[in-house]
Amino acid sequence: MYCGIDHTDLHQIKGELISNTKYPMVPGHEVVGEVVELGSEVKKFLLGDIVGVGGIVGSCGECNLCNSNLEQYCNQSVVTYNDVYYDGTPTQGGFSSAMVIHQRFAVKIPEKLAPEQAAPLLCAGVTAYSPLKQFMNSGKLVKRGILGLGGVGHLGVIIAKTMGHHVTVISSSNKRKEEAMDHLHADAFLLSTNEAEMKKAANSLDYILDTVPAFHPLQLYTSLLKAEGKLLIVGAAPEPLQILAGDMIRGKKTITGSFIGSMTETQEILDFWAEKG
Amino acid sequence: MYCGIDHTDLHQIKGELISNTKYPMVPGHEVVGEVVELGSEVKKFLLGDIVGVGGIVGSCGECNLCNSNLEQYCNQSVVTYNDVYYDGTPTQGGFSSAMVIHQRFAVKIPEKLAPEQAAPLLCAGVTAYSPLKQFMNSGKLVKRGILGLGGVGHLGVIIAKTMGHHVTVISSSNKRKEEAMDHLHADAFLLSTNEAEMKKAANSLDYILDTVPAFHPLQLYTSLLKAEGKLLIVGAAPEPLQILAGDMIRGKKTITGSFIGSMTETQEILDFWAEKG
Repeated sequence: MYCGIDHTDLHQIKGELISNTKYPMVPGHEVVGEVVELGSEVKKFLLGDIVGVGGIVGSCGECNLCNSNLEQYCNQSVVTYNDVYYDGTPTQGGFSSAMVIHQRFAVKIPEKLAPEQAAPLLCAGVTAYSPLKQFMNSGKLVKRGILGLGGVGHLGVIIAKTMGHHVTVISSSNKRKEEAMDHLHADAFLLSTNEAEMKKAANSLDYILDTVPAFHPLQLYTSLLKAEGKLLIVGAAPEPLQILAGDMIRGKKTITGSFIGSMTETQEILDFWAEKG
Repeated sequence: MYCGIDHTDLHQIKGELISNTKYPMVPGHEVVGEVVELGSEVKKFLLGDIVGVGGIVGSCGECNLCNSNLEQYCNQSVVTYNDVYYDGTPTQGGFSSAMVIHQRFAVKIPEKLAPEQAAPLLCAGVTAYSPLKQFMNSGKLVKRGILGLGGVGHLGVIIAKTMGHHVTVISSSNKRKEEAMDHLHADAFLLSTNEAEMKKAANSLDYILDTVPAFHPLQLYTSLLKAEGKLLIVGAAPEPLQILAGDMIRGKKTITGSFIGSMTETQEILDFWAEKG
């Protein structure tokens, strides 16, 4: 029915990613469709249900990670397209006319949510939601930064605002300022090339969602974190990134990677969006 | 009475650290002494008590960090020597004949512990203990790596073994193997220059305590971590360190800095050592 498209799709179409593109290949990993056929053991869905599929379509189902709702980190997980399924067939993405999917890797699209709105939540949305979830209902004002205003960044601002956080969009250019402040209603905009502004903002943020998929100087951004602050990396820059041990140590600062989200979290962000959106 | 000496002291004596050495300067930040005089409001100690002083001698006492037993991260903390105390006088370390110290920044040396054994626990010991504490009593076998066998690394191996962890010492040279296996009773030794061994050990460790205070390729070591694994940095390499975003993301891996420990943790490691040592 509907399918989102993002930079990963474009890279993959052009064969620019690390996992070489194998043609013929159908992209698309933010997929919304209608259930038209059911396996005999499927209990989770009914014919006619509107369902979503995100970044992965398989995992071993038996390891600690799969048993802890962390199946996206299972080392036998299968991504939605340009991968090989357990039966040896290549996986094809959401721009196909139909998909066959194990019930574990499909989620129910809430009735209150339009299918075309749901699609980008299935990868970009859950990618922002999964690492931000730990800061929900913390009972105090959380100050967060967001680096990069692509698909994940956009949704990240909206999700964090909906969680009640104070959101600062950080960018190396003023081009994004209007979008951040007027369209996304961020609370503040910080120009990373402005040394005085950056110095004033030092040690002020609880966390930064870092969505930038290219080289950027991490030490510049970790300096903005409070003690015990976290930089959450979701954008996979291919070049190595640099950190300063001294800054990390003196501030007990943390850098954590996060990959899409679990199927449980994918359902959660859809329900969260339908409820609050 | 007794005072430990470590690399920081040597660097500081020679004026090699970032915070320039101001002479005359007395080093020493693993200090054990006897209480010979008490302020009128001191409730924590009695004359004649054997007490210890570690890496810091002051903090603001009012911020969130000070109120959460994280005073070592307070941005007004004062280090034990080569710093300036709130009254404007330079701080001098443990090789002085006497020290004046606020009761908050002294700990009681347990009777079961020899003073000369207690000294290195006051900085090196608590530096290893503070980040490892989160893995105590986890109820499952924790597999940990240790990078670097200096003062912190040595104590780190002993503390982790005492916590019941499976300990692998990782080194770029076989020179440390005998020391690691025969003297410190590590469970395994991993030569980081041996590609086959490193590959076999990929995704096997719950955490790595990284004590190396010089440049080293972090991505080599994060590859050893399981999903959700943590690299705990306590050695302040002056050069920037490199990480690979993709590895961090696909494994939900974390890098965290950790600076000495709180005064509460300093007391804990002394009691832990006296109890189990």
